[in-house]
Amino acid sequence: MTSAPASPQKFAVIGLGSMGLGMALSLLRAGHEVTGYDVSAAATEAFVADGGATAGSAADAAGNADAVLSVVVNAAQTEALLFGPNGIAEVMPEGAVFLSSATMDPDVARRLAARLEAMGRLYLDAPISGGPLRSAKGELTVMASGSPAAFERARPCLDAIALKVYELGDAAGAGAAFKMINQLLAGVHIAAACEAVAFAARQGLDLGKVYEVITASAGNSWMFGDRVPHILDGDYRPKSAVDIFVKDLGIVQDMARTAKFPVPLSAAALQMFLAAAGSGMGREDDASLARVYAALAGVDLPGHPA
Amino acid sequence: MTSAPASPQKFAVIGLGSMGLGMALSLLRAGHEVTGYDVSAAATEAFVADGGATAGSAADAAGNADAVLSVVVNAAQTEALLFGPNGIAEVMPEGAVFLSSATMDPDVARRLAARLEAMGRLYLDAPISGGPLRSAKGELTVMASGSPAAFERARPCLDAIALKVYELGDAAGAGAAFKMINQLLAGVHIAAACEAVAFAARQGLDLGKVYEVITASAGNSWMFGDRVPHILDGDYRPKSAVDIFVKDLGIVQDMARTAKFPVPLSAAALQMFLAAAGSGMGREDDASLARVYAALAGVDLPGHPA
Repeated sequence: MTSAPASPQKFAVIGLGSMGLGMALSLLRAGHEVTGYDVSAAATEAFVADGGATAGSAADAAGNADAVLSVVVNAAQTEALLFGPNGIAEVMPEGAVFLSSATMDPDVARRLAARLEAMGRLYLDAPISGGPLRSAKGELTVMASGSPAAFERARPCLDAIALKVYELGDAAGAGAAFKMINQLLAGVHIAAACEAVAFAARQGLDLGKVYEVITASAGNSWMFGDRVPHILDGDYRPKSAVDIFVKDLGIVQDMARTAKFPVPLSAAALQMFLAAAGSGMGREDDASLARVYAALAGVDLPGHPA
Repeated sequence: MTSAPASPQKFAVIGLGSMGLGMALSLLRAGHEVTGYDVSAAATEAFVADGGATAGSAADAAGNADAVLSVVVNAAQTEALLFGPNGIAEVMPEGAVFLSSATMDPDVARRLAARLEAMGRLYLDAPISGGPLRSAKGELTVMASGSPAAFERARPCLDAIALKVYELGDAAGAGAAFKMINQLLAGVHIAAACEAVAFAARQGLDLGKVYEVITASAGNSWMFGDRVPHILDGDYRPKSAVDIFVKDLGIVQDMARTAKFPVPLSAAALQMFLAAAGSGMGREDDASLARVYAALAGVDLPGHPA
């Protein structure tokens, strides 16, 4: 249901992939004025076709926004968006808030926030969790940290895109760190699920029964329940791609090395994601790790004979 | 509620630790005649104090049983119980069924079953899942495989001890293999949970918030939800000991090596369980892996300053 909010705001959404598009449409649906921008003309057109406005550049989109929602892929794109050539930091209205959703090293989030805040704009460290479906429904989870002023200014935006907002601290960095802990676990659990299912296939077990038994047992994980059906269906079209965890477990490794903290589980998982990416599956579904194990051991998987 | 079954049976329960005692009492409560035996006199006395009968040896307990429930620790004890000096295989009535609950290599389960069946007794490969609490309530999960005759003879016993019996195949080995797949995942997830929580502590995050956020996110696992509270409470009294996964992930490694199947996640997890055991924590709670990570990186955990 569409209903105008008490005070409709002007938002810019930069990055209109499957996540950003859903967030932009959720903001529109909540009655706000939304300008979307993506370097891909096709992505921008999809938003316009659904009733959104667009602009000639990210800077044009952000120039009069109360809040800018950044839904780009990584820290480098976030930094370029803010401070690169034709960056938006200088053109954002003073006191406007930048919500950064890309998964990144907490130190980078702190650095970007300090630089933007020194220019009189607000920064909310706001990584998201939940797939395209929850994004489209405005039901994401946000792991947020930032100044009280940043939270206050970002509230109408958060209300429209998220079902649950965790408030994790009064400065940038905490949100990013919580997201990295989640990604550490998620990445390890995907690799473990693929190791277990391919090993079960090697043992000659009925994989449908494995799914039934494990999802009801102490060996279960959220990722096991979510990803193993892809293996059972032999369907490796990317719901979430291998390359995402190559990136995110890479960030975990970098953080851990800086902190002199050994992370052998995450390190082993990253090697398997790298093996999948190196085998040409980087843009396919992350359950493809099962195919790497199967290939290494000459094991049949559904739809994928050895 | 105690009510006599349609046809009360004679059962022997060998091994009266926290799991076996609960199973023996569940059988008593269901109206059967139960003789318990444990090499520890104290364990046997606990069963007698609760109304059970006992015998001078395992063979004496099993001599007239319809079914023998073996709740010993591992494959070696199972083999000794059946075929060692004063073993029960020869004294079990012909056609009686042996239910084997110890976690073991499926090849060993197949070998033990073949040997017992050649002597005219039945073998049900019946690993269990669920802790002492569910054992005491007769609400275990059993991952069972065996001949139709073994299942039929074991049914009254299974009915009394389990809420859920998975029937996983018509020969011994499948039950053991399913249990090993569960243990592979459970072990990796415990190690991952400890890695993530200690790393979160290293990042200065509020661990209570980490628990709240992760258990509601895609990084969750059954083990994360179950074990992390031990870390938050600084309570490492053994609900499930480190040594159990030293054993079970060791079996996974042996199986995988035999099968020429690489299991890098399980291998990394085993190293962390070995580090915990080697640090003197083998008989403490398996969440102790968090203390190993914390010690390696000089990180404070609740109740355990670095």
